[in-house]
Amino acid sequence: MYSFEDLSSQFIDKFSVDHFPKEPQSLYEPNNYFLQLGGKRVRPVLCLMGNELFDEILPDAWDVATAIELFHNFTLIHDDIMDKAPLRRGMQTVHERWGSSTALLAGDVMLIQAYEYLNKVSSKYVKQLIALFNKTAREICEGQQLDMDFEKIQNIRFEEYEHMISLKTSVLLAASLQMGAILGGSGKRNQDLLYEFGRKLGLAFQVQDDYLDAFGDPKKFGKQLGGDIKANKKTFLLIHAMETASPEYKEKLDRLLEEDHANKVDDVLDIYKKCKVDEWAEELKEKFLLQAFNHLEDIAVLSKRKEPLKKLALYLTKREH
Amino acid sequence: MYSFEDLSSQFIDKFSVDHFPKEPQSLYEPNNYFLQLGGKRVRPVLCLMGNELFDEILPDAWDVATAIELFHNFTLIHDDIMDKAPLRRGMQTVHERWGSSTALLAGDVMLIQAYEYLNKVSSKYVKQLIALFNKTAREICEGQQLDMDFEKIQNIRFEEYEHMISLKTSVLLAASLQMGAILGGSGKRNQDLLYEFGRKLGLAFQVQDDYLDAFGDPKKFGKQLGGDIKANKKTFLLIHAMETASPEYKEKLDRLLEEDHANKVDDVLDIYKKCKVDEWAEELKEKFLLQAFNHLEDIAVLSKRKEPLKKLALYLTKREH
Repeated sequence: MYSFEDLSSQFIDKFSVDHFPKEPQSLYEPNNYFLQLGGKRVRPVLCLMGNELFDEILPDAWDVATAIELFHNFTLIHDDIMDKAPLRRGMQTVHERWGSSTALLAGDVMLIQAYEYLNKVSSKYVKQLIALFNKTAREICEGQQLDMDFEKIQNIRFEEYEHMISLKTSVLLAASLQMGAILGGSGKRNQDLLYEFGRKLGLAFQVQDDYLDAFGDPKKFGKQLGGDIKANKKTFLLIHAMETASPEYKEKLDRLLEEDHANKVDDVLDIYKKCKVDEWAEELKEKFLLQAFNHLEDIAVLSKRKEPLKKLALYLTKREH
Repeated sequence: MYSFEDLSSQFIDKFSVDHFPKEPQSLYEPNNYFLQLGGKRVRPVLCLMGNELFDEILPDAWDVATAIELFHNFTLIHDDIMDKAPLRRGMQTVHERWGSSTALLAGDVMLIQAYEYLNKVSSKYVKQLIALFNKTAREICEGQQLDMDFEKIQNIRFEEYEHMISLKTSVLLAASLQMGAILGGSGKRNQDLLYEFGRKLGLAFQVQDDYLDAFGDPKKFGKQLGGDIKANKKTFLLIHAMETASPEYKEKLDRLLEEDHANKVDDVLDIYKKCKVDEWAEELKEKFLLQAFNHLEDIAVLSKRKEPLKKLALYLTKREH
């Protein structure tokens, strides 16, 4: 069995080839630029690990992993346009550098190329994989649309927010694992358990993300704390604070969200702490993580095969940056 | 054998079902709105006709036809964003009505749904069809990018322009026919001939489009003449005029392209006529059409099976509106 780190470096190696034709350069240069911005390539590696949970890694799994990573990059290019984000991994976004029309097209062709890799898979699995891929892709679009809808609504219920995050973030982790499981010859029940492991892990991951932005150790976090607060971004923390704060604190929060003064981050953090949002977030993360591990536990393969996934789950949710 | 009109009305009937989930409405309402703007549905019907050229229409052909029409609508939604077009078929475009972020996502999910229909096709053909679909989709993105690149360049050679139009417009007609032929059990040589028939027909169609905008009968054309000239749009006519006009006329044209005065359309048309661009365009269209018919002629099936395609080709290229 391989560790996440092993597979990540193997995948990064195999992925560093040309995925697009040379011409027209005006279309494909932005794609190549974006792909070389790098990343840990968590999702494709989850596909490889999902495969290896049940059997040796098939050659097909590398193509599916590549399709997943291209798909993920398609969503990033288009999300950056929608968010008007100037930077990605500290570098210019595609729309910032080449304009939004080219970024739109570069994203489109990235998605098409993902299907090209999926279509390389042997006939035995191709339809099943494309069906899961399509469902997941559709859900991610739905999650992004809901996220945009929620920006315009003041009070979002926790369940609505969790549902949106599940679509926007978790289902791709879940489906990556399941696609690997399909290639590993897993039965449906094990596939479903692995999918739910991934989905809950994705939720725990997002809670950790939101927590670090507010309560991280500034020395380890790497960027300034409170970015989400400054941007009025809805997070697990804000949703919970709005739902549970006393009328007095809720009114204060409402006012802070409308303003943009120098102490905003400190003032919001102060309310978060008074409402014990930090403790609640830790518990929520642990709850999701426990649910994830319970699903993993139930998968009918030898425990020791599950070790790499357990280690990865802990790494992703205990990280401090 | 069915005529184009028969198949078009059958397809429109079958296509008028829900292609998307109900929720979230904020994502799928724009898609449903856009699809019901209508159209002759030429591309999906070409798929059905390509199938029927070789055999009775398979149930699978209706799914592939649906995929093609959804794909075409995906390109229209995204093209409208890039062109900042306010109207499509006299109605508000998606980005105009719901904003460009939702239009971007609505297009994305339309493309994903196209693959969902493709994936319904029986295992025997699915990989071959998706491979052709992917190649075509990639080429259409390339054509759109080249079209945008050409906007910034004054002098485009005829061959470059023809190549761009072939990618942007013709390959989808060609591939629609070929996908039908694949389902009809056609051999590779007949598939290739049918593809080239469609590609050349697409070029003839585009020449006719450009010709009508400049030299159409105002009573029959339905919209104001000279729209392309007003918008400084590159067309077969303008490309040819720029390449062949005398230095005097070329200078005049250059100046007219930079200005925006009341007589612009008349002045450009005057130069077109003096350079005999109208006669040249008629000849060019006939040349493409003849090439198309020669390819059709070479396909090894009984002549009478080709009649509906011949009639359609004449209808598309002799139309006056």
